[in-house]
Amino acid sequence: MCDICVINSVKERMLSRRDFFRASAAAGVAATAGMVATAPPALAAGHGGVVDMTHTLSPDFPTFFGEPGIAMDQAFNFAESGFNLFNLSINEHTATHIDAPLHFSADGASVDEIPVSDLVVPLCVIDIAAKAAEDADAQVTPDDLQAWIDTNGPIPEKACVAMHSGWADKAMSDAYRGVDDGGAMHFPGFHLEAAQMLLEETTASALASDTLSLDHGPSADFATHYAWLPAGRYGIENIAGLGNVPAAGATLVVGAPNHKGGSGGPARIFAMI
Amino acid sequence: MCDICVINSVKERMLSRRDFFRASAAAGVAATAGMVATAPPALAAGHGGVVDMTHTLSPDFPTFFGEPGIAMDQAFNFAESGFNLFNLSINEHTATHIDAPLHFSADGASVDEIPVSDLVVPLCVIDIAAKAAEDADAQVTPDDLQAWIDTNGPIPEKACVAMHSGWADKAMSDAYRGVDDGGAMHFPGFHLEAAQMLLEETTASALASDTLSLDHGPSADFATHYAWLPAGRYGIENIAGLGNVPAAGATLVVGAPNHKGGSGGPARIFAMI
Repeated sequence: MCDICVINSVKERMLSRRDFFRASAAAGVAATAGMVATAPPALAAGHGGVVDMTHTLSPDFPTFFGEPGIAMDQAFNFAESGFNLFNLSINEHTATHIDAPLHFSADGASVDEIPVSDLVVPLCVIDIAAKAAEDADAQVTPDDLQAWIDTNGPIPEKACVAMHSGWADKAMSDAYRGVDDGGAMHFPGFHLEAAQMLLEETTASALASDTLSLDHGPSADFATHYAWLPAGRYGIENIAGLGNVPAAGATLVVGAPNHKGGSGGPARIFAMI
Repeated sequence: MCDICVINSVKERMLSRRDFFRASAAAGVAATAGMVATAPPALAAGHGGVVDMTHTLSPDFPTFFGEPGIAMDQAFNFAESGFNLFNLSINEHTATHIDAPLHFSADGASVDEIPVSDLVVPLCVIDIAAKAAEDADAQVTPDDLQAWIDTNGPIPEKACVAMHSGWADKAMSDAYRGVDDGGAMHFPGFHLEAAQMLLEETTASALASDTLSLDHGPSADFATHYAWLPAGRYGIENIAGLGNVPAAGATLVVGAPNHKGGSGGPARIFAMI
């Protein structure tokens, strides 16, 4: 493994390719490290495992705009250089990802500014799969939220309220975007009134949808985005795995990306059940 | 907020900018969703909070190669389009990030293939800050590991063994890379013999360093990388926050990126204490 020829090759390539990743070095501020959440949430006691809530990110994953959301350029390969390394080009709002408040506001919190205490939170799963199977434009309504509350009790502090429409299973088919002959998309989302109810009556930190958007496909005005994000709360889109977690009682750990000033980005998300 | 002019602007821009993110749509395989870890680890009982173990990712964060590790291109801005969105260019091995086995092997596991059961694991912190303060080239040795074991007991199953050298505090200074007059770098790392001890005597899933590399700065042969990664274990580099967690008893939640076929990438990492 440590053959000197390989090593020399690696080191020569390192020197000769120092310019392989030239990028604009925008003015920036010192990195922040080791921030401790001031209001740590309780993890579910006696949990039984870890569930991955994350789709695999590839150029084939459907996107809102219909173009590939990631491209990978192999800068170094093992055969030539003794190691593999890719440069990535990523649209922030691709696959399982965060919508930071900044995504739909002039000066809201960027993705690195979301408090850690909002990233490890109780998970509430609103199951609308039955009505979504009948109507691709189905929405989570205040009645759906009330039904969850009637069964499970109040929405917990800082909860992530997730829509389980069953769409995650369609992710690699045309049905995920649901484009009709007129070019309009069809998939479920949160009704504005449900977002307003959560804003007014709860401290929920996040909405999560298992589709391409917080708003349903035919939305003409992104009303849920514009209600939710400027209020300083965040969103998760294209969440996976909601069929593998309970309606209440799991803790969501949201591995939001931490690039300075971002409007969102691909996240690794787990549920502790 | 939902002014029709803003909305129409958004939608027009969406249509006119459908080509804003053209990228090669490499052949790919269906996304994997909702994978459940088969051997869920125990989370620390009675934990007291969540600690962020992640540096902020910006063009200013030091990199191994010395070039900026991220560039952000604003494709849409709120004033013109009613929303903000960036396209990101990222070197996989930037800021707090994963080294997948594929990084230093021809066909090892890519970052999306690391089992979920290896991503939520006990954290063992090996504190070499005192000797690193005297010698920037200090390394974690088998004696350091044995001292941890003598105090804390055996390395737990699947643990992440982390080097706390104190380097995270230097992240935005020249001392982080420690380049000398001859161009060589100086920062702490894991000695090959420590990696070998962990490979032979433990099931540790990951090494984590609070510096730019698993190997110390002057390494001529990347010996620790070549011993550890091809064995199917993974690495974390530039981890933050080790001064805010106990030597034993915390659980690390590693939000590894999930792009298909990647050799690693920026991760969001939390410790539950």
